[in-house]
Amino acid sequence: MSEKENGGSSIPRHAPPKGARTQEQELLYDPNIPTPTHSELARTMVSKIGTGTLCTMSTEPDGYPYGSFVTFAILEGNPIFLISSLAEHTKNLTASSKSSLLVAEAGEGNPLALGRVTLIGDCSRLSDGEVDSARIEFLEKHESASFYVDFKDFHFYRLQVSSVRYIGGFGRMSWVDEQSWFEAESDPLSPFSNDIIEHMNEDHRDAMMICCQNLSKAKDASDAVMTGIDRYGFEMSAITSDGPRPIRLAFRNEATNSEEARSEIVSLVKDARKISET
Amino acid sequence: MSEKENGGSSIPRHAPPKGARTQEQELLYDPNIPTPTHSELARTMVSKIGTGTLCTMSTEPDGYPYGSFVTFAILEGNPIFLISSLAEHTKNLTASSKSSLLVAEAGEGNPLALGRVTLIGDCSRLSDGEVDSARIEFLEKHESASFYVDFKDFHFYRLQVSSVRYIGGFGRMSWVDEQSWFEAESDPLSPFSNDIIEHMNEDHRDAMMICCQNLSKAKDASDAVMTGIDRYGFEMSAITSDGPRPIRLAFRNEATNSEEARSEIVSLVKDARKISET
Repeated sequence: MSEKENGGSSIPRHAPPKGARTQEQELLYDPNIPTPTHSELARTMVSKIGTGTLCTMSTEPDGYPYGSFVTFAILEGNPIFLISSLAEHTKNLTASSKSSLLVAEAGEGNPLALGRVTLIGDCSRLSDGEVDSARIEFLEKHESASFYVDFKDFHFYRLQVSSVRYIGGFGRMSWVDEQSWFEAESDPLSPFSNDIIEHMNEDHRDAMMICCQNLSKAKDASDAVMTGIDRYGFEMSAITSDGPRPIRLAFRNEATNSEEARSEIVSLVKDARKISET
Repeated sequence: MSEKENGGSSIPRHAPPKGARTQEQELLYDPNIPTPTHSELARTMVSKIGTGTLCTMSTEPDGYPYGSFVTFAILEGNPIFLISSLAEHTKNLTASSKSSLLVAEAGEGNPLALGRVTLIGDCSRLSDGEVDSARIEFLEKHESASFYVDFKDFHFYRLQVSSVRYIGGFGRMSWVDEQSWFEAESDPLSPFSNDIIEHMNEDHRDAMMICCQNLSKAKDASDAVMTGIDRYGFEMSAITSDGPRPIRLAFRNEATNSEEARSEIVSLVKDARKISET
C-alpha cells in the first residue's frame, strides 16, 4: 500500500490484518468485512501502552529534535505527562511547545512488523483547573508515580494532538486526521483480548478450523489459531496446503465486552457447523 | 544527584550502582572503586539494543520534532540506519539533517528506573564508499533486513554523534561529551553478563554472601544475589538486617572475557574465605 493510496483521513476498512501477505496471493476471506480503522487501531494501541518517546525541540544543542523516554496516560485522546521542571524535555517545552510522542508496540519477531503511532502537536503545562482529572487518569495508569506526584518540581503537561501517523507494520500506514483521532474509540475488547485468544487456542481450535473450512475460502484448513480479536470480528491463522494463511471473520453485531464476544463467536461456529451437516 | 553535580563531561567513577538508595543511608562499600563511566554504560547499552526512536524535523506539519520507530546498528560509535526514501523520517532528513536517536532499555518494574541514551547529531546518507562496512555491521545485527537491503528505495544513513545524554535511572544522568563517547568502549563482558549472573545466583550464593560479609560493610549479610557484572567488578544485592542493600566489589584486573571474569571472582572469594578462617 503506497503512502498516497491510504494517506489523508480515509478510513481503510479493507486494511489487511496482521500477517496478511503483500504478494499477489488470493485472499481467503472477504476483505470488505468490518475491520477496525487506523484511528481505532491507533487509539487502542496507545491506550494499552504507558511509555513512549517524547520529542521536543532541544535548546542545547539548539534546534535539534530531542528524544526522551517518558511515561504517559491518555486523557480524552491526548497524552498527558507528569514531568520535572529539571528535566531536559521540560526545559525544551518551556522554550517551544512543538512536540510529538512515539508509542511503539513491544513483541517478538521482526520489530518493523509491530505497530507504532506518532502523535504530533503542542505540549504545554496544564492549568490548575485541569490538573485533577489528569492526576486521576495518570495515577490509575502509573501507580508508582504517586511517590513523586506531589514533588514541587513535577507538573502535568498535555500534548494536544493535531496530527497522527499510524504504522501497523510493513506497508500498513496512514496519516489519521485530528477529527478521526478524537472520534475513534479504543477497542472495548482490548483489555480481554489476550485472555480470549489464549482460551480459544487452548480449547477451541477444532471449532475455528471448521469456521475456516466453511466460512472462508480456506476449505482445506487442517488447523487454525486465533491471532487477534476486536469489536468487529476476529482473525485466525489457518493451516492450509499452502501454509499458514490469514482469515478474518466478522461478527454480526459489535461486541463490547467478553460475554458479547463469546456469544458472537458461538454464533459463527454454529453457522459453520450447520454448513458441515448439510 | 542534581543535573549540575554530574553534568558536563565529568566521568563519575563514583556513580552509585543500580538499586543504590538515594537517601542518606551509609553505603556498605567503597564508592571510589572502579566503576564504568557514563560513556561506557551508554556505549554498552546501545551496543545491546537494536531498536530506538529516530527524531527528525518534520516537514509536514512543518517544524515539529517527529519521532519514528527504527532499527539501527552502531558503527564506530555512530548509529546507522537502513531506511526507505518513501518513509517520513527519510523525507525529513532530506530537508534537515538535524536528528537524535533515543535508545531505551526494556525490562520489568518501574520504567523510569531503566536506562536510556539520547544520541544527538546530524544524520545523512552514506556515500557509496561507506556503504560496504555499514551493510556488514547492519546485517549482522538485523539479519531480517537482508530481504530489503537491496531494494532501490532503501539507503544507509549515519547519525554522526555530537552530543550524548545518558540517564541510568532515577537521579543518575549526565551529558557525555563527544570525545568521551568515541573513546569509550562497550563492556566486553556485556554479551556474557546474563549467563554469568544466572550461574552465580544458581550455584554460588554462599560464596557471594561470604564476600559481602568480609569484603564489604554488610557484615550481617545472610544471602546475596548478583545484580550486575562489568569489566571492573560486580554488584550484588545483600540481604541484611536493614533489608536488601547494594554492594559493589572491584576486580584486581580488568576482565575482558568470561574466563577472566571467573578468575577474578574466584580471587575475591578466596580473599573473603581467608578472612573467615582467621
